[in-house]
Amino acid sequence: VGTLQAQFGAVVKRRRLAAGLSQEALAEAAGLHFTYISLLERGKRAPTIVVVKKLSGALNTSMTELIRELEQGDAPAGVGEGT
Amino acid sequence: VGTLQAQFGAVVKRRRLAAGLSQEALAEAAGLHFTYISLLERGKRAPTIVVVKKLSGALNTSMTELIRELEQGDAPAGVGEGT
Repeated sequence: VGTLQAQFGAVVKRRRLAAGLSQEALAEAAGLHFTYISLLERGKRAPTIVVVKKLSGALNTSMTELIRELEQGDAPAGVGEGT
Repeated sequence: VGTLQAQFGAVVKRRRLAAGLSQEALAEAAGLHFTYISLLERGKRAPTIVVVKKLSGALNTSMTELIRELEQGDAPAGVGEGT
């Protein structure tokens, strides 16, 4: 991966696919534009904490969990469960 | 507090004071401008994850811990210890 935003993009993509969502569906659920989701997943945007919160809600998880995955670089066994 | 960015600003200020740092010292350690730290602490800016990472390093903690405090709205007993 590489930059922090590329790593975050990978976390979002992994979570989105685990949830069975298209980029369009995630965008709709998060109140963000579809093209922004595409840029984000490709590491072309560094999201603000406001965007991280919107994504966490749409992905049925918490900001803390998304950032934990970003820092640890792993996907927990429970990913997608929203536990 | 109020908005997410105001809540995050409060987390940063609490951590900064616990570490005994001035806004100038935190700015220097994080590689950010002093006026940005001031705006951030007053909830006038929503930081990107890149800024959150810089702040976490300067405050001797992790991004996950800062975001956890943001979401939980509390200060753990170990705040400022860098555990």
